[in-house]
Amino acid sequence: MLSVFSDEHFMKQALEQAKMAYAEGEIPVGAVVVSNNRIIARAHNQTERLQDVTAHAEMLAITAAAGGMGSKYLDECTLYVTLEPCFMCAGALAWAQLGKLVYAAADDKRGFMKQGKEVLHPRTKISYGVLEEEARTLLQQFFREKR
Amino acid sequence: MLSVFSDEHFMKQALEQAKMAYAEGEIPVGAVVVSNNRIIARAHNQTERLQDVTAHAEMLAITAAAGGMGSKYLDECTLYVTLEPCFMCAGALAWAQLGKLVYAAADDKRGFMKQGKEVLHPRTKISYGVLEEEARTLLQQFFREKR
Repeated sequence: MLSVFSDEHFMKQALEQAKMAYAEGEIPVGAVVVSNNRIIARAHNQTERLQDVTAHAEMLAITAAAGGMGSKYLDECTLYVTLEPCFMCAGALAWAQLGKLVYAAADDKRGFMKQGKEVLHPRTKISYGVLEEEARTLLQQFFREKR
Repeated sequence: MLSVFSDEHFMKQALEQAKMAYAEGEIPVGAVVVSNNRIIARAHNQTERLQDVTAHAEMLAITAAAGGMGSKYLDECTLYVTLEPCFMCAGALAWAQLGKLVYAAADDKRGFMKQGKEVLHPRTKISYGVLEEEARTLLQQFFREKR
């Protein structure tokens, strides 16, 4: 059972965003930003719709969160994202001094962990594997259909 | 003397953008994107004004360039930027499959070269040091005033 403020609860919300991306023909990645157990931003990948490589779910989510907070620093926030962030997104999370990062599926090819977690801010906590299977299944289904 | 389509010519334009950032109290970094010897995007750092860590000159420039080109891929484009891109921006340039990157001043602390040029797309050409002194002097002046 899901308790209200669990990582699973928030990752489910990120997965809902990923499903929205899927429905729009975008690589299905979704993210939410949480502050004090409240979701302050939701976003999904929009690189195709916007024809903009910077429109990853994480980038859109932190821009929205910073707008909501009125601060570019998100050190009190947790970002939940359905796929391990890429270098670009990890670099952005570092600048934002993100408090905590939780991701679902690993991305061995494009994920930031290839360079090591020092790409993030030294104070950013990291957790992963939350609803990993659901997130990975959605991605695999997307790429199978594209082939 | 500057010939019209030289790297110096376009870097001067990026420096003009950096000066605009300076005048707005932003860390003075500017960028332009060039396609077929024509500037298709100009941008300067706006992280303070927008309170958004993703609002680096390079990010704003490639988003604008992709909008202008109607394509998220910038493999025919050259980005001129007054400071070595950070990890976030280099990641974005990799996704955009940028044709060529030209930067002025090095950034030993935050620059992507710390991780190695493989952070960029393998086909992206790299050139640096163009108007390096002008770019560095502007940055040094900015930080001296802030102290």
